[in-house]
Amino acid sequence: MIDDTIAAISTPLGEGGIGIVRISGPDAINIVKAIFKPVKDRDLDNENFKIIYGHIYNNNNNSDTVNREIIDEVLVSVMRAPNTYTKEDIIEINCHGGSLPVREILELVLSKGARLAEPGEFSKRAFLNGRLDMAQAEAIIDIIRSTTGDALKLAVGQLKGGLSRKIDFIQNELLEITAFIEANIDFPEDEIEEYNLTTIKTKVKKVKEEIKNLLDTADTGRIYRNGLKTVITGKPNVGKSSLLNVLLKEKRAIVTDIPGTTRDVIEEILNLGGVPVKIIDTAGIRDTDDMIEKIGVEKSKSAIEEAEMILMVFDSNEEYDYEDEKIVKMVEKKCGIKVLNKIDLKNNRKNINYKIKEVLPNWPLIEISAIKEKGIEKLEKKIVDMVTGGKSITSDTAIISNIRHKNQLKKALIHLEDVLVAVDKGMPLDIIAIDIRGAWEAVGEINGTAVTENIIDKIFAEFCIGK
Amino acid sequence: MIDDTIAAISTPLGEGGIGIVRISGPDAINIVKAIFKPVKDRDLDNENFKIIYGHIYNNNNNSDTVNREIIDEVLVSVMRAPNTYTKEDIIEINCHGGSLPVREILELVLSKGARLAEPGEFSKRAFLNGRLDMAQAEAIIDIIRSTTGDALKLAVGQLKGGLSRKIDFIQNELLEITAFIEANIDFPEDEIEEYNLTTIKTKVKKVKEEIKNLLDTADTGRIYRNGLKTVITGKPNVGKSSLLNVLLKEKRAIVTDIPGTTRDVIEEILNLGGVPVKIIDTAGIRDTDDMIEKIGVEKSKSAIEEAEMILMVFDSNEEYDYEDEKIVKMVEKKCGIKVLNKIDLKNNRKNINYKIKEVLPNWPLIEISAIKEKGIEKLEKKIVDMVTGGKSITSDTAIISNIRHKNQLKKALIHLEDVLVAVDKGMPLDIIAIDIRGAWEAVGEINGTAVTENIIDKIFAEFCIGK
Repeated sequence: MIDDTIAAISTPLGEGGIGIVRISGPDAINIVKAIFKPVKDRDLDNENFKIIYGHIYNNNNNSDTVNREIIDEVLVSVMRAPNTYTKEDIIEINCHGGSLPVREILELVLSKGARLAEPGEFSKRAFLNGRLDMAQAEAIIDIIRSTTGDALKLAVGQLKGGLSRKIDFIQNELLEITAFIEANIDFPEDEIEEYNLTTIKTKVKKVKEEIKNLLDTADTGRIYRNGLKTVITGKPNVGKSSLLNVLLKEKRAIVTDIPGTTRDVIEEILNLGGVPVKIIDTAGIRDTDDMIEKIGVEKSKSAIEEAEMILMVFDSNEEYDYEDEKIVKMVEKKCGIKVLNKIDLKNNRKNINYKIKEVLPNWPLIEISAIKEKGIEKLEKKIVDMVTGGKSITSDTAIISNIRHKNQLKKALIHLEDVLVAVDKGMPLDIIAIDIRGAWEAVGEINGTAVTENIIDKIFAEFCIGK
Repeated sequence: MIDDTIAAISTPLGEGGIGIVRISGPDAINIVKAIFKPVKDRDLDNENFKIIYGHIYNNNNNSDTVNREIIDEVLVSVMRAPNTYTKEDIIEINCHGGSLPVREILELVLSKGARLAEPGEFSKRAFLNGRLDMAQAEAIIDIIRSTTGDALKLAVGQLKGGLSRKIDFIQNELLEITAFIEANIDFPEDEIEEYNLTTIKTKVKKVKEEIKNLLDTADTGRIYRNGLKTVITGKPNVGKSSLLNVLLKEKRAIVTDIPGTTRDVIEEILNLGGVPVKIIDTAGIRDTDDMIEKIGVEKSKSAIEEAEMILMVFDSNEEYDYEDEKIVKMVEKKCGIKVLNKIDLKNNRKNINYKIKEVLPNWPLIEISAIKEKGIEKLEKKIVDMVTGGKSITSDTAIISNIRHKNQLKKALIHLEDVLVAVDKGMPLDIIAIDIRGAWEAVGEINGTAVTENIIDKIFAEFCIGK
């Protein structure tokens, strides 16, 4: 039972036009009544989903107008339970931006009996009060941290319940299997019909398949959430830094033509057709074209090992040589694209690139001119296709983007494999039922139906203050 | 005539729980109707000061639900002209924090016909539409940038119109003088009675006095707005860095026990009893106790020259010597406090400090122990008294804090002195009227009654985006 009232600054800190102090809980309205005076006579108790203009005062006694000091001119938003973010009474005090007005107002609210909210505590209440399941609550932090429009769409889809519906469906199927087992459990072992054991196996295999399909989306999901770790490599003077520069210029995730947006925070993330692409060792490449030489083979190797995508650049006017070969050996086990650069300088030696076409046979080859900015769109499209398998991302796409969810699905799979083994070995049905229950709990940690308090705390601690 | 609609992100950039896109102008409601779908069927046209829950979609055609993509789940605040911040229709879209949701929503709003607002343009409209005068509008940026509670109070007082009322009053008196002159202007010069000239002089002197009184508050005001520039000085090993450390520890303007507040931005500003105190050359003092030796006499001199307050530290257990004398010579023309440190170690040589009491005779002397944190409150109170003259700051205090306002008042004074000279010289009344008009215009630039477009643009360009 939640019976206290929490408050926090919900806008990012720094200079801005608006700052918001958010209060949630049974005392929210009374606390604000003690420090707020509307310009027109209005009773907060009678308002819902209304905005009220007035002033925040720092006196203790609301009826004493003599010693009142105005802290700020504000708009107060009153939202009454249960149709709010937390399903509790919520008041948002919308004041002038800057660090001091929000801070003074927050301190005043705390002095009237609210408790400083922990990171993510508003969302945690939304979860505990049943407005969001765990997967939906986790989507909120993905929305806040998203770096491309497609990543945002996936997170919004998860918030809408796309993933939750899949998880609910899987849980239901597992419950049906449990019910089926329980219907048979009272029979002595030797009387359980072979037919029924086969049915259990069929049902379990079907659920396994569904979980596997969901797991197959995990790589894509993780990429949208964290960015596709990409290395641009190639021997000296093939145009690696030119390629990086043209990508940086055109595709930087945070558009810089809106004044005031900060680039530094996520400046290494490119937005390639909606896919967030994180260039590894960018600084090294930018400083020198001779990345391989400069930072040494060891460092290149570890960057390549970490990478999920290699863009290996070749000079289309030069023959494939031992230097290319050296790098190809390093990358051949990875996934990547052969980028044939400098096609604007194409000479007449037609078959000069035949060897490039032969090596890394599973990698697509894209011709570009980084300097003339030709072929960049094609390269981008290829990267996107390799990530999404050609399917476009919508907010209806159910995708696993969270490593926690992935691990839970894997745990569920192990339980189901144990079930199949147990059935084959003729183990007792109640043993089998335990593993079915284990699978149910494993996926239940995704939507929060089977989650411990510990895990809940851990998940919401990753949130930001005021959310 | 303002006929376009502007939009901007009004929350600070960065990670936070809430982000707001603010839209103001005649098309605000229509623009939002094209991208927003309420969860319950509601017509934005019929709402006022209401909060509506729903989703922002990126489709172009509101009736086409097939290709709709949800950008975010939002609360939309509808505030209709004329009782809004800008006196225009305002919509605030309150979405999940983070840089992407606000940015995507802003881009969508711009694509529907809004124009990206310039810095301060919402406040500029509030001014142009007559909701705030210029001094009130300028108070808003002081609110946002305030660093102590008292500085905030002064800015809120200015927003409430405290300064504006004073300025209006002065303007009215000047108008009365003009009327009086005009009543006499048709008489030939030699027929103007001496009595009337005396009346003009008396009236002008009275206004001069009022302006001077206001100007007298300017130093206090500037200190609250920009911080009291303070130098801690003294010879080596008297405890300068200990004093600084105890002040930093207890009085840092941005309280650090609220998680998430950034200290770096204004970290050199201390809050001493509400007075923002800016320590000059803090870094130098912190790195070494031997500030004078280390950074050299020249640099010390320039720091002292810049300072508005000197805290000169002495060791209460040592006799005044030539080293103290050297520094006393440097600071003797400034305003400051003699800080007698290390009183916890007081020995028996009673009259050891008699010389310290003699030098800098106008400076108060405060005994402290920085190490034992004794006397710090007394020192703080003394600084505050010296800044405020012992009066406490309330939001009803009319104080000049803005250098622009100070300059305008000085201009007005010069005009009024010219009037007095002209009257004494027996200049024609229409010449005198011109200077009265000049004074009226000079103060009119403070509240905006006599302000040019150029000045308006310059003032609002200092604001932040989204305000």
